[in-house]
Amino acid sequence: MPGKIATIEVITAILGENDRVAAHNREHFDQHGVLALNLMSSPGAGKTALLEATIRALDGRFKLAVVEGDLATENDAARIRACGVPAVQITTGNACHLDAQMVHDALHDLPLAGLDVLFIENVGNLVCPASFDLGQHRNITLLSVPEGDDKPAKYPVMFRAADLLLITKTDLLPYLTEFSVARAHEALRQIGYGGATIELTNRGGDGFAAWLAWLEREVAAQRARVPR
Amino acid sequence: MPGKIATIEVITAILGENDRVAAHNREHFDQHGVLALNLMSSPGAGKTALLEATIRALDGRFKLAVVEGDLATENDAARIRACGVPAVQITTGNACHLDAQMVHDALHDLPLAGLDVLFIENVGNLVCPASFDLGQHRNITLLSVPEGDDKPAKYPVMFRAADLLLITKTDLLPYLTEFSVARAHEALRQIGYGGATIELTNRGGDGFAAWLAWLEREVAAQRARVPR
Repeated sequence: MPGKIATIEVITAILGENDRVAAHNREHFDQHGVLALNLMSSPGAGKTALLEATIRALDGRFKLAVVEGDLATENDAARIRACGVPAVQITTGNACHLDAQMVHDALHDLPLAGLDVLFIENVGNLVCPASFDLGQHRNITLLSVPEGDDKPAKYPVMFRAADLLLITKTDLLPYLTEFSVARAHEALRQIGYGGATIELTNRGGDGFAAWLAWLEREVAAQRARVPR
Repeated sequence: MPGKIATIEVITAILGENDRVAAHNREHFDQHGVLALNLMSSPGAGKTALLEATIRALDGRFKLAVVEGDLATENDAARIRACGVPAVQITTGNACHLDAQMVHDALHDLPLAGLDVLFIENVGNLVCPASFDLGQHRNITLLSVPEGDDKPAKYPVMFRAADLLLITKTDLLPYLTEFSVARAHEALRQIGYGGATIELTNRGGDGFAAWLAWLEREVAAQRARVPR
């Protein structure tokens, strides 16, 4: 089927070019000692809400910036700016994920000098974003309780790509008794996920403290790797 | 940028071939007087749970079958079969949506003779499935309350593609007071959505009855269009 081979060749070329730009982005982050974190999840799993709560909790301890990816609207960037943190909105139109070039272009509007952490909030999509390196140092995947504990089994590519998995909206566990944290862990084990998992709600508690501690360790590790 | 032009040409060719196979599928459905419905939503919005509840509520009134789309596992097809309805599972691997050829191939394992309704449950993804015609007669998009009332504004392509929008998991409204049904309707109006909207929970009530009534009208309309 020559049509299919041509398609695969074009996709391979796109991914190769993306990897080249992603490596360039990563060098750029490292030059400035910035830790770049790529947040991925289904739509509505709570990526923006997590960022809002994290900004409030850190209370200026780190210098942060956010790149927001959505098909349409500036809504999420506006929410971040309302927390006092600079944000650039990428609107992708029909595109189902961010790519390295979009992030590269966004950086023109976002000075990296002096930043500690750049959060990149990807398009809400549990499939496509996992296949595109943006130059980030770590992937953080969110699984919200209302989505169900079977999602790691059904979307293995995304969950295998994670360096940290956050099970969000745990305050809904009393109302969504069909969600079992144990079954979610078992599904992650079965697909071979070997990273850390934290269960949390944005309202605080041990899980949220563990998330902040993870973030602090990663910032410290980036500072040790790339002294400014 | 010749690379970009080549990519666009390949994508146009893929969509053209997909439309050809989709038209073939639709002819096939019409020959057998089968109403084909394409269910789309984010992961975990409740597509399979809606089908389970619908099968139970119809209690054999219509002859149903289901095509299930997931990256991995036979879980959803197994859930449908446990309700006594034939189901074929398509596992897409890395692919983020069903296409017409996948549905065509699945029909080899699913006799259409005597069927009233074929449900096609697409891969959980609020972006890509909207761009691929499968040969269905109607698109049904689910928006679950935990995802938030801003999703129509942020994923306009998917919501504009819908013939019917179901706002699901309304039993969670008392716990998710940040979701406003009025704001969801306003967001739909602003992107130009002109179809019907039903708010429902699978536990019954007026919304679920309205969904069953919509389904009965569509089956009757298909029978009137294509007498068997």
